[in-house]
Formats: sequence, structure tokens, C-alpha cells
Amino acid sequence: MTETVEKQIVTPYNVSGLVDYNKLVKDFNAELLTQEQIARIGAITHKEPHMWLRRGLFFCHRDINPILDDVEKGNKIYLYTGRGPSSDALHLGHLIPFIFTKYLQDAFDCQLVVQLTDDEKYLWKPVTIAETEKYAIENIKDIIAAGLNPKKTFIFTDYTYMERMYPVVTKIQSRVTFNQVKGIFGFQPHDNLGKISFPAIQAAPAFPESFPHLFGKQKIRCLIPCAIDQDPYFRMTRDHAESLGAYKPSLIMSKFFPALQGSMGKMSASNPNSAIYLIDTPQQIADKINNHAYCSVQDIEEFKKNGTKVADDVPYQYLRFFLNDDQQLEKIKNDYENAQMMPQDVKNILIHQLQELVMNHQIERQKVTDEVIKHFMEIRKPEVQKEEF
Amino acid sequence: MTETVEKQIVTPYNVSGLVDYNKLVKDFNAELLTQEQIARIGAITHKEPHMWLRRGLFFCHRDINPILDDVEKGNKIYLYTGRGPSSDALHLGHLIPFIFTKYLQDAFDCQLVVQLTDDEKYLWKPVTIAETEKYAIENIKDIIAAGLNPKKTFIFTDYTYMERMYPVVTKIQSRVTFNQVKGIFGFQPHDNLGKISFPAIQAAPAFPESFPHLFGKQKIRCLIPCAIDQDPYFRMTRDHAESLGAYKPSLIMSKFFPALQGSMGKMSASNPNSAIYLIDTPQQIADKINNHAYCSVQDIEEFKKNGTKVADDVPYQYLRFFLNDDQQLEKIKNDYENAQMMPQDVKNILIHQLQELVMNHQIERQKVTDEVIKHFMEIRKPEVQKEEF
Repeated sequence: MTETVEKQIVTPYNVSGLVDYNKLVKDFNAELLTQEQIARIGAITHKEPHMWLRRGLFFCHRDINPILDDVEKGNKIYLYTGRGPSSDALHLGHLIPFIFTKYLQDAFDCQLVVQLTDDEKYLWKPVTIAETEKYAIENIKDIIAAGLNPKKTFIFTDYTYMERMYPVVTKIQSRVTFNQVKGIFGFQPHDNLGKISFPAIQAAPAFPESFPHLFGKQKIRCLIPCAIDQDPYFRMTRDHAESLGAYKPSLIMSKFFPALQGSMGKMSASNPNSAIYLIDTPQQIADKINNHAYCSVQDIEEFKKNGTKVADDVPYQYLRFFLNDDQQLEKIKNDYENAQMMPQDVKNILIHQLQELVMNHQIERQKVTDEVIKHFMEIRKPEVQKEEF
Repeated sequence: MTETVEKQIVTPYNVSGLVDYNKLVKDFNAELLTQEQIARIGAITHKEPHMWLRRGLFFCHRDINPILDDVEKGNKIYLYTGRGPSSDALHLGHLIPFIFTKYLQDAFDCQLVVQLTDDEKYLWKPVTIAETEKYAIENIKDIIAAGLNPKKTFIFTDYTYMERMYPVVTKIQSRVTFNQVKGIFGFQPHDNLGKISFPAIQAAPAFPESFPHLFGKQKIRCLIPCAIDQDPYFRMTRDHAESLGAYKPSLIMSKFFPALQGSMGKMSASNPNSAIYLIDTPQQIADKINNHAYCSVQDIEEFKKNGTKVADDVPYQYLRFFLNDDQQLEKIKNDYENAQMMPQDVKNILIHQLQELVMNHQIERQKVTDEVIKHFMEIRKPEVQKEEF
């Protein structure tokens, strides 16, 4: 990554500047995942750790150890992740947390809850409630298509689930002041009441009490896989968890998936050429990679002489996310950096990889009928562990 | 009322000082009810206007005329009132809005919704959610015992009804800033998020959209009977009603029911001798009136010589609330002020009146079974006007 003096700003509402992840982890007072912890995840789950762990893409955490202790002992834990349904077309970056969550759900064999913050989008964006609810359902189809376990996944929208969550929401709201959310999120006195009180709504699912149908009155730990920009919500949540009689939620956090134009923070839904969308055709994928992906090779003669560096080469960076074979990835890196492999060859491998991923996603998504959605959103006791309640 | 230089403070959270109601109406930019409006209420409802209208106890309003126009034309309107369930023992002052609401419901033959803000009490007081929910159910028994029409009354608590109301809540929250609630309610940056965003929750039932099971998508007017300290909530509500595609809610507002110790604002639940409770025995009622009601006669010889003034005499003021016979009340006033009637005689009439009221209330309250509560709280279409939907 190139050096920069630009100020680094990372909140749930704003990511700008080149991100120095080590500095961010230090600023947030989170912890980097160690090789030992990653190896332990492999050992206790009897699976190779996910490539995004191996490659440092999910790279930092809060309190991952007690989660691993519980999983190792066979104690129940649950996963919580979510999405703000801002538009009905998701891009690859949106899929990252759900692909990783599916891996964790399978590896830990545990319950998952997924929150769609349709209320947040209404409060922040110029959209109607009906539109956010429609986006939420469209997004849910993509989320389910990521392969979540239908027996152990509960998906809900805030507008449809608020009644059951509202006691926990008020418990959190009663413990957090305007001054505090001003400090954490930068809210201002001219911000609307919905925005100001929203952090409690994103915090609520981190408490098992929000899901009596799933957890009864059990005190169990929650692990939240998310991108690091969501950390402020859960720092706040953790500050008040114990006074609510709950464990502080644990976090496992990712770096941002880069935009096609380069690693400057997150992708933008407002520029269709900044991202590969899950509805893109194979041809669109090829065109976007060929024409819009930032390539570290800008002068081919210079490249042939001196090679390149892959740190800010988008096709290579995308392969780090989507090429599962470590050896093949390492070979591409070496060959490409030493000009043994041409930029177009790297792009072609990526195009093939993404076309397959997106096509498979589209096939899975088509299987998500209204019936399937209803099943995932139904308020019912867990199917598998029924006897425990 | 005696003159005072003490500062007059009236908000939903604080009533202090002797209240100058005319000044309050002017400060709040509300309007006094005129004799013509009161006569019109009598004419269109074919009933004598309630004694509290005749006697200036429900004394001011916002937009009462369009409500009366609609009632006259046979257009549907609805009533909304509520209560913050702070304890399980209500006093006479708590009953006033419900007695008056019952009168309006019968006179206008209309739907009524009653909100129990159990969340508000959790956010403001050192009580658990379970306690506020228990208080709410106890309070609902008293509210039903006031004689509300079981076919046209929907009673709900925020904790049980939030899901259906939440879209409207966020619509209001999105339109109101922290600066605005700071200005209206005096909230401070160190106040908790629940308090700060609560005004939207009290505002929501003023929109028919909050009750799709009762009103579908009809645009109908709402009339709110309440004590004048609740006006700030609805000033805020009215400011945003039209942008939500609704009518500004109308208000009809009362003076405060005086404490036994005198007219200094509202009664206090923390001093059991400041109020007659709905669970008091006939003997307790007699003792409280005899020993704790502030009497304008402090020197009996002076009284025999010069009479008294009833303006701050609590037994007489209570009779203004609870003695229905205008002529008898006028005679008591004249005789008492001219020392033709002794203070104890006035007290005796009041004691008899209140013993009967409270005994009847207790009898009605005993009839409120769990089944009855369930009926009032059930989310169902209106029974009578079913064909209209």
C-alpha cells in the first residue's frame, strides 16, 4: 500500500482514505488474530481454517478465545451478522460476510441470526419504508443463496421483528446517552432521533435475550463476523453487555473488499463500474475486470523489465479473496511480480473464477422461493436442538 | 387562585408552581374552549355537555372545530388517550382523562385507542420491564373499569404493540432532531437515547396508520383528550403530521386535578396522603378528606363572621369534579362562601360522593377478568363497523 498523509476515517457511515489496518486495530483497541488462534480454529473445528483467515483478510477480533473455549467444550454459542438493505443489487463485497459466516456456521455447527436493518436505511437514505422492506427481501434471497444452514438460521428485518427485540432495545437505550453516541458515531444535535437511537437497534441482536424462541433464557456467547467499520456499534454494545446480564459479544472482523478502481476503502453502490454485481452476466464481469479493474502494471515495457508489485493490483487482490488454492495463488504472485505472467493472464484467471462464483450464486438464488424465505424468517424453536428447550 | 411570583413550569416531566392556565394556553399557543363550542358539542351529540366542559375543567383545545364538523357530518374520527403505568395504585387524578374519554366515546360514538407507555416508565424510573408490564396490566383494569366501550376500544402497551407501530415511529423520528426535543422537552446531551427518542412513540398513536386493523388506509381525524402537561408531545406531533400525509391531531385538554394539600399542580404518587386512591376504603377516604384536604377555612370564628372563598378550598374543588348537579354545586358555593354551610358539611357531601365513586369503581374493576382484558387488547377489526372495511 502506498504511503499517504490523508486522514484515515472509518465509521459505519464513512470510510475514506487509504486504510492502515494495523493502526485501526490499535485505535479501536481490538486485537490482531494470531497464527496460533487461526491454527486453533482449524484444530477444534477439524477443518482447514477458511482461506480468508489464512490470508489475513479476516484479521482481527475481540474476545475470540472464550468463543473457541466454548466451541471446544461443546457449549452453545451463536453467530450474529447483518446487512443494511440499501439497494436490491448486491455486489461481491456485500457477499463476503455471509460467505464467511456460512463457513463459521458449518465449522462451529451453531445457530445464526441475521438482521436486516431496513429501519436504518429508511432513517439515513431518501427511500420509503416500503422500498427498504422490498430491498430487504431481495437481499435476503442473496443471503440465503450464500448457503446458510436452513435448520440453524433465523433471518429477520427490524420492521417485522421489532416487537420481540424492543425490550432489549430499550434496555440498551436506557444505558447510552446522546453524548456517548456523539463521541462514538459523530452524531450531531441536528441529527434525527431515529439515527441517534439506532445504535441500540443494531446492538440488540448481540444479546440472546432478543431471541427467546431460539435461546430461551440461556446465557450464551455471541460471535459477530463483520467488516471492521462496524466495530464502533459493538464497542458500545460490549460496554453495556454485562450490566444487562449478558456476555460481551465477541467479534471477528475483516478488511474491506476493494473497489475495482483500487483499495481506497469500500466499494460504492453509486458507481456501477466500481463493483462486480451478483446480477452481472459473464460478459459484464469480463468487461469490468478487463476495463475497470485497477492494474499495477501501467507500462508494459517497464513491467517486462522490472516486474510489478501485487499490493495494489486489483485482479490479484480479488484472487486473494476468491482463489481457494494457496499454492496456485502463491505461484501467480511470484510469476506476476517477476513478469513471468502477463496482467491479462491474471485477469483471465480472475474472470473465470468470478464468472463461476456469480453464476453459481445466481443458480442458488433462483432456488430461494417465497416458501424458503418464509422458512428462514419464521419465529420457531430451533429444529435440531429442540430437545434442549 | 392567589397571586404568585414563583416561576411556572409545565412539561410532561415537571409541573411546579401555581398554574396560571390562561397564561399557559397563551404560552402554548392553544385556544380556550368557547361557550359556543361547548354548546355545539351538546347540540351535535344530543347530550348535555359533560360537567367538566360546563365548569371549565376541560378548558382548552387545538383544532376542535374540524372534529366537530366531522362528527356532525357523520365522518369517522377516533380518540386517543394514554397512561404511563408508573405504579399499580391509581388515584382519582389518574381517572379523570378516562372518565372524560368515556364521555366523548359515548357522545361521538367512535373508536378509541389507549396507549400504555410501559417503555417510558422503564426509561425514566428505576423499575424493570417486567414491573412496568405488570403495572400496565393493573392500570388497564382501572381504565376498563371507567366504562369504555368494549366494541370500540383498543388498549395496547408499547412493549406488546411496538412492531405494528414501529414504521410510524421511525417516520416521526426521521423528522425530529435532538435540537428540537431539547427545545420542547428540555432533554440534555447526557440524557439516555430512550428518553430522547421517546416523544415519537407517544406521537405515533395520533396517526391512524398506526392501527391498520382498525382504520385500514383511511385518512381520519384523531382527537386527544389529556391534561395540558401533555401538550408539548402533541405540538411536536402536529408539526410533522401533514408531512406524514395525516391530519394534525386535535386536542381537548384539562386543568390538573388538585392534590389534597391544595392546588399546587398535580398529585404525587409518592405521598399517599396527597391523594384518594382507587383502592382506598370508605374509612380511608373519610379520614383523608377530614384530615388531609386543604380547607380554606382556617379560623372558624373568622369564617362565621366573613365567610370564605372556595377558589383554593380542596373539598369544594373536588366537588366541582365529582358532583354532577350544577344547581346543588352552586348552592353549596353560595352557602359555604357566606358561612351558611360549615366546612364539615361540605366535606361530608364530598366524602359521600367519593365513597360512592370509588366503591362503584372497585365493583366495576372486579368484573375485569383476564378474558375482558384480552378482548380489549386483541388486534382485530372493529366489531361494529365491520362492513366498512
